[in-house]
Amino acid sequence: MTSGRVTSARIDFYYEFASTYSYLAAARIAALAELAGVEVAWKPFLLGPILAAQGYDTSPFNAYPLKGAHMWRDLERLAAAQRLPPVTRPDPFPVNGLLAARVAVHLNDACRPSFTRAAFSAEFAQGRDIADREVIRQLLAGLGHFSEDVIADAERPENKERLRLQTEEAKARGVFGAPSFVTADGELFWGNDRLELALDHARALARAA
Amino acid sequence: MTSGRVTSARIDFYYEFASTYSYLAAARIAALAELAGVEVAWKPFLLGPILAAQGYDTSPFNAYPLKGAHMWRDLERLAAAQRLPPVTRPDPFPVNGLLAARVAVHLNDACRPSFTRAAFSAEFAQGRDIADREVIRQLLAGLGHFSEDVIADAERPENKERLRLQTEEAKARGVFGAPSFVTADGELFWGNDRLELALDHARALARAA
Repeated sequence: MTSGRVTSARIDFYYEFASTYSYLAAARIAALAELAGVEVAWKPFLLGPILAAQGYDTSPFNAYPLKGAHMWRDLERLAAAQRLPPVTRPDPFPVNGLLAARVAVHLNDACRPSFTRAAFSAEFAQGRDIADREVIRQLLAGLGHFSEDVIADAERPENKERLRLQTEEAKARGVFGAPSFVTADGELFWGNDRLELALDHARALARAA
Repeated sequence: MTSGRVTSARIDFYYEFASTYSYLAAARIAALAELAGVEVAWKPFLLGPILAAQGYDTSPFNAYPLKGAHMWRDLERLAAAQRLPPVTRPDPFPVNGLLAARVAVHLNDACRPSFTRAAFSAEFAQGRDIADREVIRQLLAGLGHFSEDVIADAERPENKERLRLQTEEAKARGVFGAPSFVTADGELFWGNDRLELALDHARALARAA
């Protein structure tokens, strides 16, 4: 969406493809940011190494089963409230989102949001396995990309390094979960539930500038 | 607040006195429930045994320091958004909320909300130690209670047992964190962020009945 509006407000949107609440945020951030007059930088990263550094060896939703059970029910309720399709649960969960993240990092800013939404939708609404190259290839083809070329480029060493650096950047800015939103002053907002507050803060910062 | 409105919509509000997000929920639930036409049952419980059963030996906010740091910042932001005073951080955290919970369980339904709000405010806005009997005594006196009698009654075996049973009830209904909201159909909503959704659900249930 492009309004033609001049804006200097901006947030960085850090997301992980295995993350259920990143799916919800990715589905609504573009419209909300447009309404708020805030520009969004879409920044896929790998949550695994960041969780591992905190002592987790799997998703917190697996490590704490009661929390996990609530999360899936919560996801169903919130997806319905966002008018998204019924939720499908990846099995195993969490999926390996490495290839999807590499592809998303490689795509340009104009193409990244639509690929991101398509991959999340495949994963959490269509029951498809985004760790499968063929699934990613089909998603890219469906978006009009030369899918084989994109995947080959996404797996070149310099692009792998870009994803690694973006994960380091997230960690350096204090990101410990996904999704997270970081504003220009370094303020960190964790969780899909904080998207509105992050947008308000980004707008207030831009007004004050 | 009493509107005189006839309602059959109801939610159970499970809260723990050591819980930061229970503080935020306790500060806003009465007004939001009144607007939604939903009756609230205020149910203090002890989160400690429930966390212990999940394998925690302290608050998750202590076990995961990055998450804890974000929680305190988030609490400051949300308290400001709710027009609550600047947050004071109990030291040590979490506090022992046992006495406050016993007193809250003992008070009748009409007195429990105001004591609850006063205790949370002492803890998170005035920097007072609610594990201290004298602090609890002053809070009760400030609300017009015969404070010594209330504390003595709250510590009688049958009242201790009521708190134990209420904690068991919470656990049996799937509560694993605080605050939690449970509607008449057993639907569980975890977290201050889910209060609105829980109220909507309680109202929809009552309409459908």
